[in-house]
Formats: sequence, C-alpha cells, structure tokens
Amino acid sequence: MKKKTIGIIGGMGPLATCDLMEKIIRNTRAATDQEHIHIITDCNTCIPDRTKAILEGGTDPVPEMVKSIKRLQEGGADLLIMPCNTAHYFYDRLQAAADIPILHMLRETAKTLHRKQTACAAVFATDGTVRTGIYDRVLKEQGIRAVYPTPDQQKLLMCLIYDYVKSGKPGIRMQKPYVRELLETMYSLGAQKMILGCTELPIAFDLLGMKQDTVDPTLVLARAAVTAAGYETVSL
Amino acid sequence: MKKKTIGIIGGMGPLATCDLMEKIIRNTRAATDQEHIHIITDCNTCIPDRTKAILEGGTDPVPEMVKSIKRLQEGGADLLIMPCNTAHYFYDRLQAAADIPILHMLRETAKTLHRKQTACAAVFATDGTVRTGIYDRVLKEQGIRAVYPTPDQQKLLMCLIYDYVKSGKPGIRMQKPYVRELLETMYSLGAQKMILGCTELPIAFDLLGMKQDTVDPTLVLARAAVTAAGYETVSL
Repeated sequence: MKKKTIGIIGGMGPLATCDLMEKIIRNTRAATDQEHIHIITDCNTCIPDRTKAILEGGTDPVPEMVKSIKRLQEGGADLLIMPCNTAHYFYDRLQAAADIPILHMLRETAKTLHRKQTACAAVFATDGTVRTGIYDRVLKEQGIRAVYPTPDQQKLLMCLIYDYVKSGKPGIRMQKPYVRELLETMYSLGAQKMILGCTELPIAFDLLGMKQDTVDPTLVLARAAVTAAGYETVSL
Repeated sequence: MKKKTIGIIGGMGPLATCDLMEKIIRNTRAATDQEHIHIITDCNTCIPDRTKAILEGGTDPVPEMVKSIKRLQEGGADLLIMPCNTAHYFYDRLQAAADIPILHMLRETAKTLHRKQTACAAVFATDGTVRTGIYDRVLKEQGIRAVYPTPDQQKLLMCLIYDYVKSGKPGIRMQKPYVRELLETMYSLGAQKMILGCTELPIAFDLLGMKQDTVDPTLVLARAAVTAAGYETVSL
C-alpha cells in the first residue's frame, strides 16, 4: 500500500490542532523522522466560530474551510481530517467540495465505542455540537444511547472549553469538584463512557487529571488516520 | 501592519514541529481562535537526515526542503521558519530559493543571548550542527564565546536526541546524573547559559526537568515569529 500524506483542516482551535498532530506522531510506529507520516496542517484561524454560525446565525465557516481543503489538496494531501467536533455539522458540504476523503471523527468515535461494547455514552461538547444532534446520529447508527449534562453542567463545559483552553485562563483545577459532580450525574444516568466531544476537552481533562472512563475523539481520529495513511499504530 | 501567515518547514523532527507550533500559539496574545496566527505547517518527513548529509555525504536535503518552501508559499505563507538547528547549515541556499523571508533561528538565539549580556554560552547540538560551526559563527557576530561538551558528553546528547526523543525510548530520567555532570563541566568552562541547539533537546530537558540556565531556540524563534507576523507576544 502506497504511503499517504495527511492533510489537517486546523485552527479550530489552534491548540487542538497541535494536539491532533502530536497524537498522530506519538501513535505512529516509527524510529526516525523519515519513517513518520508526511502531514500538512493548515492552522487556518480565519475560519469563523462554528458554534456561533450554528446557534446565532454567525458567518458560515464553510467557504473558509473549503479554502483550507483546496490548499491541502494542492499541497499533495491524500486524505483529510479536522480536529473540531462542531465542524462535523458541515461534513457533507465539505466532503462534497473535496476530491479526497475526509475521515469522520465522530463516526470513528462511535465505532470505537461499539467495539468496546458501550451501551450508553455521555456527550460532552459545545452547545453547538449538542444542539445539532450530530453525536446522537452517529451513536444511534452503532446502537448506543446518548446522555447529556444538565444545563448548569453544560455551562461548566463551555467554560472549560472557552476560558481555560481557548483563552488559556489559569487555575482549571479549581473546577475539579464541579467536574466530579458532572461525572457522577452521568454515571447515574447509565453512562459507561464520557465522550470528550470538543477537541479542547481532552486538553482540559488532561490538565484536570480526570481521564478515567473518557473517550478522546482526537486520539481515535489520530489512530484512524495513521491506519488510513498506510502506517502502523503503536499499541495503546 | 497587515497580519501575516507563518509557514513552517517542518518534519525535522515531527515532534519538534508540534513543539514550535504550540510555542507560537501559547506565546500569542489571543483570546479566541480567530485572534491567533494563521500557520501553515509542512511536516515533511521526506526531508533526508541533515546530520547524515553533512557528516557522511548522505542525500542533500535541500531539494526536498525547497519543495516545502514552494508548497508553503503557494499556500499563502508570508514568512518562513524551520524548527531544525542543523538545517540552518543550508540557510543561504534555502533563502535563495524562497521569495519570502526565512527567520534565522540561530541568529535570533544569539541576539537574545546578547540582550541578556551573556559573555559565554555552551552549545548543545547534534554532531552535524557542531561540526559545521554554525553556532560559533552567529555567537561570534554577537561577541559571545562558545564552549562545547567533551566527546563522551556529546555522545550523551546524541542519545537524548535520537533515542529518547526521536525514537520515543522511555526512561530518560535515568540519564539525569550524566546530564548534571555535563552542566557542571560547562559551568566550569565559563558558560552562563546552555543553548539547547537541537529542537529535540528542549523536549528532552523538559522531560528531565532540568531547564535552569538553558536557552530554548525554539521558544526564541516562536516569539520572534509572532512579532514578525504582526502579533503581540504574551509576557514571559
């Protein structure tokens, strides 16, 4: 199988883009620079906020994302990935504009949960992602029930995403008791796994030191991309 | 001043490329995705080993690096940076092939040391970088004396770079006593600062927890790039 070049439609957000790149690199079986995967990353910070576009009629992010797709294709990418859960709301329009396949992060995550025999999963995501129901759809395809945080807990998640990761506010560990309460609510609703369904959340939960029973779609996508590019993954 | 797009000639190595991206992002004063810098990264793992090219007559890396330059220029980059000290041996040929400026990581580092009134600095780098004398040259331009590890200590540095970072070998902290000896030798030769002059070394010294008196050229370059792109840096 010919080795492929991965293109990353990035910038949503910038740190999540680095996180995905690093996860691809750390999950590739390679001993030298040259054995690693050729990755072209467009950390395109001109892409408008996805949540605002969906919930508040903000600027449509698709035209700018299509610019990234063209840039990556022209650079030689063979397959595309995007480290932004909310952006997958626009997946069909983006795939229609691309000449190469875009791996679907949410669908890959649902398939991974199915393989782990998960019957019920909690969805931690932005208001935009939650409201669109995109996780519901992919989980349903795999016969998995979705449960969600209370409105107050949802506000806590948005604050972890926007304040502590995107804006880099210090002191995230002060939020630990509230996050613990959130997890208890989810377990009580039957959740076996918590999907960290915004690319800033694995970064937040790492900082919190609370990754037990969580599933990181960025990691799932990174490993799926390594395989799709024709490389071997390291064992977990 | 018009905001500029940064292009990264990457893949030398892949993790060092992520490290530079992350340092640019964390050093940019920004509160939303859209306030961050547009960065296009070509993590081009087809670029042959720079040290082998210089010391053993290995494949010339310049043609493949020029492919990255063209790809980044065509993608819309306004200025270029490369997170690989050894690659700067080829700087003049690369700048000649580019239509946009390439910031010089080593020169920026020497200028930073000069501003900190450093009279003598230790150079920790690959055999290739050391042998070419590129650090000697830029340090001399700023009136700074360079000192170097013993041959055995140089082997230790190569092992940190190639085994513990590039190949991801675990247990780097076992090397702490040897690294401590290395630092003592450097202080005894008059060094006030230690230049971590291979992009894998800031990662290694982070893992070792031994960054005192070190200067990280990746960080220096990241901050210089933020300024050159027309953005504000956060204070250190």
